[in-house]
Amino acid sequence: MGEFDLISRYFTRPPRHALLGVGDDCALLQPQPGMQWAVSSDMLVDGRHFLSTTPPARLGHKALAVNLSDLAACGAKPIAFTLALSLPQIDEAWLQGFSQGLWALADAHGCELVGGDTTQGPLNICITVFGEVPPGDALLRQHAQVGDDVYVSGTLGDARLALEVFRGTLTVEAEHFEAARARMEQPSPRVALGLALRGLANAAIDISDGLVGDLGHILQRSKVGAVLTTDWVADSAAISPAMQSLTMNRRLDFALAGGDDYELLFTAAPDQADGVQEAANDCGVPITCIGRITSTPGLQVLDMQGMAMSRRFASFDHFAR
Amino acid sequence: MGEFDLISRYFTRPPRHALLGVGDDCALLQPQPGMQWAVSSDMLVDGRHFLSTTPPARLGHKALAVNLSDLAACGAKPIAFTLALSLPQIDEAWLQGFSQGLWALADAHGCELVGGDTTQGPLNICITVFGEVPPGDALLRQHAQVGDDVYVSGTLGDARLALEVFRGTLTVEAEHFEAARARMEQPSPRVALGLALRGLANAAIDISDGLVGDLGHILQRSKVGAVLTTDWVADSAAISPAMQSLTMNRRLDFALAGGDDYELLFTAAPDQADGVQEAANDCGVPITCIGRITSTPGLQVLDMQGMAMSRRFASFDHFAR
Repeated sequence: MGEFDLISRYFTRPPRHALLGVGDDCALLQPQPGMQWAVSSDMLVDGRHFLSTTPPARLGHKALAVNLSDLAACGAKPIAFTLALSLPQIDEAWLQGFSQGLWALADAHGCELVGGDTTQGPLNICITVFGEVPPGDALLRQHAQVGDDVYVSGTLGDARLALEVFRGTLTVEAEHFEAARARMEQPSPRVALGLALRGLANAAIDISDGLVGDLGHILQRSKVGAVLTTDWVADSAAISPAMQSLTMNRRLDFALAGGDDYELLFTAAPDQADGVQEAANDCGVPITCIGRITSTPGLQVLDMQGMAMSRRFASFDHFAR
Repeated sequence: MGEFDLISRYFTRPPRHALLGVGDDCALLQPQPGMQWAVSSDMLVDGRHFLSTTPPARLGHKALAVNLSDLAACGAKPIAFTLALSLPQIDEAWLQGFSQGLWALADAHGCELVGGDTTQGPLNICITVFGEVPPGDALLRQHAQVGDDVYVSGTLGDARLALEVFRGTLTVEAEHFEAARARMEQPSPRVALGLALRGLANAAIDISDGLVGDLGHILQRSKVGAVLTTDWVADSAAISPAMQSLTMNRRLDFALAGGDDYELLFTAAPDQADGVQEAANDCGVPITCIGRITSTPGLQVLDMQGMAMSRRFASFDHFAR
């Protein structure tokens, strides 16, 4: 099987919304009148963004999920994506699984594969995703307001928990491991919640490098500070049964600086609290209030007793040594 | 230097046309009312799309050029692009050169870097480019008409010539090598010509895998055949002085199946010949008529005497053995 057969067998379907899909020099799309376009690219590298043990279907899911998560963080509706794939060799079982996982998530979000590239080389998956958002409705990192509540969606720390089990630094019960592993390998992009938060949230980001680091991006861009509580790490909707099985210290590490969560971190004015909760209920996604935006620059993390913690939580950096 | 410093130092500028550029979950773009969007992704892998001897500035140029070439082949006006970069390590001299070459070409085409991703891994460069085209004006592979003249822009075979010198299978004079090497490492995307051919050309593609293979894509999508002449390989605007220095057999191989040319291959009705020539003159890009579209399926290559050649010219396939 050659490059063009591969594309046609695994990555080509008749276009639905696109004017022209896979198979020409470019895809052609017709933006809805007046809409803005949100664009994001993510590149996944073997051993860094996923382990070689990841089942191909889960990898296909994850490659698109991390991109959809960026659209979710902007409150943009997914429209289309391109896939560029570097493969060491043609492995049909792998391609079958990978494309299956990819299509399943794409279909679930009505997001169409419109083009891309395939080449031979070290395994590398680069997806660029396009979404639509009405002018002024995009959720940005830069619009957090002093006094805003700070929320997270879903649960935090599970992906890191699974990674540490893979690394052999941690042992948990099998059911906890499987649940955490599914969260690491098949994150759920919070697209519906992102859409529902338009007009309610002031700022948003998706948590990919760890809560503290990603909150830092909001603070920096919004030129504000924040106080982060940690009592929710003891017991809240944001802590899964798998995380509950760990010591408090480990939970703090994984929830505050775990990485790979792909949950939304967002801020909203206190008088929007009811609306925010309703939006979350409608989407079936739990949310947890974890702090407040302040005018004092920097991030203050409070311990269970409400005292300032001196401990540092590092953000994930691909080039940090 | 970490990931975020790297992005901010080498790959961030204030947005010009984009509503929001590098630094949030997504970039935000405002499509012009009524315009269609052309989208293309290309991934460049070390040792496959470029040699490790490529100066970084030329590599930055080439990574964007091959994408702009796809827009050119659709007659789309470049607007913006995303850059996803996997790097083995942070090499500031390399980043300086690479970004310089990238910005220079981006500026020359008014194409704005709006976002992307940076990670650690084997060197891999994935660019996704966006362009605009008025509805109905896009040049597609599928619209070649029986009787159309077949044209190529610029010169063919130079990139392959340079590659074979690098491989040690060929020796040419130093000035020829340098000229051919510049064509291999710094191809000129024919954006202006692509725009000028709107309404004149019926079908177009950019030549990246070799003339014969890429013409095959037009024939397949348009459900037509073609007769390809070869007398132009002896002497025409499509053959550079470097190519002129080779034997006829080598020239045929490199011009018809060389790869990495990034010239436009397009078809136009004979009664558009004057307009096509004028468009090419206006852009300062030579064009050469090299054949005709026929109703007989398949591609017939004629020798210098106008007799059918039995010789086969392979197209480039990343997974062919």
